[in-house]
Amino acid sequence: MNYIQQDFSVQFSYKVFFTEFLFSLENRLFNDLLESVHEEGIMRKILFVIDENITIHFPKLGEQIDTYFKDNPYVKLVPEKVIVAGGEIAKNEERFLTTIIDAVNEHGIDRHSYIVGIGGGSVLDLTGYAAAISHRGIKLIRVATTVLSQDDSGVGVKNGVNYKGKKNFLGTFVPPFAVFNDYHFLTTLSDRDWVSGISEAIKVALIKDAAFFDWLEQHAEQLANRDKEATQYMIKRCAELHMDHIAGGDPFEFGSSRPLDFGHWSAHKLEQITDFKVLHGEAVAMGIALDTVYSNLVGSLSETETNRVITLLKTIGLPLSHEYMNLTSADDPIFAGLREFQEHLGGRLTIMLLKSIGTGYEVHELDAQLIMKASQILRNAQESPNQQKQPLSC
Amino acid sequence: MNYIQQDFSVQFSYKVFFTEFLFSLENRLFNDLLESVHEEGIMRKILFVIDENITIHFPKLGEQIDTYFKDNPYVKLVPEKVIVAGGEIAKNEERFLTTIIDAVNEHGIDRHSYIVGIGGGSVLDLTGYAAAISHRGIKLIRVATTVLSQDDSGVGVKNGVNYKGKKNFLGTFVPPFAVFNDYHFLTTLSDRDWVSGISEAIKVALIKDAAFFDWLEQHAEQLANRDKEATQYMIKRCAELHMDHIAGGDPFEFGSSRPLDFGHWSAHKLEQITDFKVLHGEAVAMGIALDTVYSNLVGSLSETETNRVITLLKTIGLPLSHEYMNLTSADDPIFAGLREFQEHLGGRLTIMLLKSIGTGYEVHELDAQLIMKASQILRNAQESPNQQKQPLSC
Repeated sequence: MNYIQQDFSVQFSYKVFFTEFLFSLENRLFNDLLESVHEEGIMRKILFVIDENITIHFPKLGEQIDTYFKDNPYVKLVPEKVIVAGGEIAKNEERFLTTIIDAVNEHGIDRHSYIVGIGGGSVLDLTGYAAAISHRGIKLIRVATTVLSQDDSGVGVKNGVNYKGKKNFLGTFVPPFAVFNDYHFLTTLSDRDWVSGISEAIKVALIKDAAFFDWLEQHAEQLANRDKEATQYMIKRCAELHMDHIAGGDPFEFGSSRPLDFGHWSAHKLEQITDFKVLHGEAVAMGIALDTVYSNLVGSLSETETNRVITLLKTIGLPLSHEYMNLTSADDPIFAGLREFQEHLGGRLTIMLLKSIGTGYEVHELDAQLIMKASQILRNAQESPNQQKQPLSC
Repeated sequence: MNYIQQDFSVQFSYKVFFTEFLFSLENRLFNDLLESVHEEGIMRKILFVIDENITIHFPKLGEQIDTYFKDNPYVKLVPEKVIVAGGEIAKNEERFLTTIIDAVNEHGIDRHSYIVGIGGGSVLDLTGYAAAISHRGIKLIRVATTVLSQDDSGVGVKNGVNYKGKKNFLGTFVPPFAVFNDYHFLTTLSDRDWVSGISEAIKVALIKDAAFFDWLEQHAEQLANRDKEATQYMIKRCAELHMDHIAGGDPFEFGSSRPLDFGHWSAHKLEQITDFKVLHGEAVAMGIALDTVYSNLVGSLSETETNRVITLLKTIGLPLSHEYMNLTSADDPIFAGLREFQEHLGGRLTIMLLKSIGTGYEVHELDAQLIMKASQILRNAQESPNQQKQPLSC
């Protein structure tokens, strides 16, 4: 056979920094990062894309950024900030993507310039996608401003936007140049946004780290009450577990397995059919609950551990059920989520279930009757007070 | 400092096959590739995107593909073929991109399905980009049908489309799953398309391989006369040199250096200002000629070797000059190519020049006066007969 074999590997490295007041003049972290990669005689440009919600809660942010980068020896700040809507709308409407790409064009942002996204997960996904496809990849710096983006989506290698209502239909795998998790941005979050960011920590603990799950149980009330120290620990440990998983496994997901999507097959669909009125973290909490109870029903997870998961979700203040999660027929729209999950991943349907707290295992089919049964158990659990160490009844 | 360090590497592998009559039933190459990656119980989909020019010259191709994949045990063929315009228009008009993405959506093409692009460089660039951004990357198989795509663009890791008239403004670095170079597709090329594909071979010989340059000189007339054996050797050696460069260096071009773009700063601009009436390979020939003579004018390349390059280009039938390459002022539009080249690459302007045939070196600025002088030398050389071993006069 007449062929040429091509083989090479590409090395990726980045740091996720944990800080506060990133753009105050006393905080030299951002400046020091730019200094560390500076090349003599080269002035790179830096363009900011900011979540509209952040500009409302931090009206002086633009000014602070201007002051921070004034006369900076390493970068030339593009004065115009690109403001995009916060939340899923940023990924749903093409005009936001076009606005960023047009700014790249207009301001002559090259591949060695920086695009900085400041915002929640959706804005970071959008900004990352725009950066990834412009000039075959501009350096992306993420400033994550929600619990969810600081502990999960903001620290990873994915980006994307929705297309014709399908979540992340367009996107790429491209690691960021750096990530800054600034705790101060979290302080203006609504309780609902705050709490919903905790579900990804519970998820990753369930599939990867029993000790972290114990810790979450012990600090559940502090987390629900927005205790700073507990939240900072939770975010860092959650980010670390996500990052370890990415580095240790299949970073660009060439295989069909996707353990970090535990609980996500129904969650993605629930977000979509509620037009994203259910937040991602809330949907994930319900998805985790469903697949946990299902794991119990198929006999792989003990009732004690199942109850611990349900109790933790409730103590944190996360929902267990929703009218669309009241599954009574295989025609319920949530079940389309299984097909779409398989389509997005490709290959065989691969779903993570739980063997014990901290240990997952993969299956390739789910029993619709048992999923419906799990959904009914959760409807009851949602309404009843916490019954720690009581068996689930159905 | 409080941070998490992330480090990982990703391995990429693919084969570039050289064959003929890829879709004849006797040719099992494509089938065998699919078999080699087959997983029990999984039927992957396969979607074809075909260059309109190919459908004109090979009107039975669609039928052949249908026959080839009928009852194939490894893939399920999507019967509808996506036909896109051949040439730069495929990359210029967004509707072609949208058509492919909509077909991915409509036919439920997942990440482990295949998209096969059949066509010249532009169609492969477009198809590769659509595949790269759909579901964060669908497996791409390229069937390159021009000399240029078989020896250069089709075997590499880039894809892209144009945006607001800027070449490859949108794109990514994503290796293909496999490449098939089918010689039979070349047979219907016009002489102009054929010859223009040879300039990338001359380019890569000039910067990488003096022995290959000698070979090109010795076979110049055979190549110009479309001799099969000579062309096949040229394509394979050229592809190999490009692939070695990618694997050995900086595959995703994180740095500013881009030696394979020798002669391309003016070429890209010339294509654009002539609305792509000048073919890429023709523009590259003129760009090579310009930077070769410039290398001589700055004293790095001998006159003998400079003359050898000019003579080879002329013998092959490649152009040396063009009315827009008649440079007499720093305001000539070609000079904007230098700025755009720097913008696309980012960082410092980095241009490859020649030290000798087979050996390049990089500079970070060019002298506009000497570029103009080189352009005038080439205008004269274009008009005069080949003067092998005569000194260039200016």
